[in-house]
Amino acid sequence: MKNEIKIFSPATVANVACGFDVLGFCLDSIGDEMIIRKTEAQGLKITKVEGYDLPYEIEQNVAGVSAHAMYTALEPDCGFEIEIYKKIKPGSGIGSSAASAAGSVWGMNELLGNPLNQTQLTYYAMKGEALASQCEHADNLAPAIFGGFTLVKSIDPLHILQLPTPSELYATLIHPQIEVKTSESRAILPKEIPLQNAISQWANVGSLVHALHTADYDLIKESLIDSVVESHRKELIPHFDAVKTAALNAGALGCAISGAGPSIFALSKGKKTATAVESAMRIVYSNTEIEFETYVSKINVEGIYKI
Amino acid sequence: MKNEIKIFSPATVANVACGFDVLGFCLDSIGDEMIIRKTEAQGLKITKVEGYDLPYEIEQNVAGVSAHAMYTALEPDCGFEIEIYKKIKPGSGIGSSAASAAGSVWGMNELLGNPLNQTQLTYYAMKGEALASQCEHADNLAPAIFGGFTLVKSIDPLHILQLPTPSELYATLIHPQIEVKTSESRAILPKEIPLQNAISQWANVGSLVHALHTADYDLIKESLIDSVVESHRKELIPHFDAVKTAALNAGALGCAISGAGPSIFALSKGKKTATAVESAMRIVYSNTEIEFETYVSKINVEGIYKI
Repeated sequence: MKNEIKIFSPATVANVACGFDVLGFCLDSIGDEMIIRKTEAQGLKITKVEGYDLPYEIEQNVAGVSAHAMYTALEPDCGFEIEIYKKIKPGSGIGSSAASAAGSVWGMNELLGNPLNQTQLTYYAMKGEALASQCEHADNLAPAIFGGFTLVKSIDPLHILQLPTPSELYATLIHPQIEVKTSESRAILPKEIPLQNAISQWANVGSLVHALHTADYDLIKESLIDSVVESHRKELIPHFDAVKTAALNAGALGCAISGAGPSIFALSKGKKTATAVESAMRIVYSNTEIEFETYVSKINVEGIYKI
Repeated sequence: MKNEIKIFSPATVANVACGFDVLGFCLDSIGDEMIIRKTEAQGLKITKVEGYDLPYEIEQNVAGVSAHAMYTALEPDCGFEIEIYKKIKPGSGIGSSAASAAGSVWGMNELLGNPLNQTQLTYYAMKGEALASQCEHADNLAPAIFGGFTLVKSIDPLHILQLPTPSELYATLIHPQIEVKTSESRAILPKEIPLQNAISQWANVGSLVHALHTADYDLIKESLIDSVVESHRKELIPHFDAVKTAALNAGALGCAISGAGPSIFALSKGKKTATAVESAMRIVYSNTEIEFETYVSKINVEGIYKI
């Protein structure tokens, strides 16, 4: 059995317009790299962090916390070193902490001969994710670990469904370099919502799941509507409406806030449209003082993988 | 072309636990019979109503109102007579008015050579349904017209999705003979609901749609949960909790209020279990003063059909 594994741990988009807190999908062209190494010495060590200034202490690093939860449960007769080459900017709204939390446990599981299934890995990864967001949630972890589109049916007990991914679906992301704290983004949401809006939302979730199963791109388009969260959270993202309008005008099937923001995602049929959507999004922010980055990505149906 | 058609217009179950106002399915062993007859004379006439005491006046009968809406839109060079053999008790919560409203337009459409598609028929049927329930909705009409499981994605524009029906799925119904007015059943619902409950509900709707696509009976069971409506409406239905417990103990996948009630439905895998569920439900009401009827039905994937 190999003693070292190098992995790609992808960025992910949570919520997917209509599916607040439950839906997510996995990206391919944006992600961290990590090296996990088995050691004879017991215990866990983070031996390298590059890209962003994150703590080396196990209990202060999301990758360390998830690794520690899994390590103490499995009690393997070895230790692990973790190297993190962070590419996903923390706080970007595309699952930066989830990539770290999922990557360490996924890599350790591989090196141990895969004793845990994907749901169990998600369970331990949630312990790390909780360090970053003050609550256990899995809407970024599930797509990172399972790949493709996922639905977190429930957290307790943890129950994750893998949904089909139509083959021509591409994502476009724009990340305006502003800070939106997840806690702030959560606090802005009302505790109660109008029943009529909730009904629209679950109609759209059901419709999107049906559309993914039937690879019906028109129906995907009609389902990517958020009646609950967007109107509140978009206040935290300058030019959101302009970006959304530009993306839709460029042919996107839908455009919404990625997770808690500030990143904005669009889904398109075909890479050509996704690239046109990227250009259209760039134009909006090019006319502002805000720095930004954009990405076009195929939906990653594999999730985390060895490189 | 034939000048007369006799049809079976089925009872239907709306809401289906998690899908308030959007999901529904079609029954097979309970339904009205109707005869629609083309006449040389222009205009519409209801020439017979048997079973229940319902008005003959076109504008006061749901079957007449839907027929009139379609008739004035199409302006055919003929008239129609409608005979209604009502078997579904009005106010039972299994789509009695929907069966009438859908049946007349479905039959007329057949006699005219099917100029309208199923969505268009639902549109006209909604005009009749509105007479009975004071608002236009399609969650009983859609399964009656499309058959199987349906999702009303939106009312305006009207957009209905036909979902797959796993072949071993059977419904059990119990109709306690008490009056629950749809208006009262609507009024008891809050205008706002907790966001957390709404999230559970759309997770379950997504999960149920996925389960229907994958014929995953375990997942159907885990998805048939209502976090929004049941706790309010069950107050209107004596012994609801006992019936639900009995149904689940007898092996039902799920059990919830049918539409606005008072009927209660269960879904089961296989006819044998559905029949055991029926017995278990009967025992609960047998110990009370309330009269009741029960039915076991395969899911009707055809919807309205000629007999």
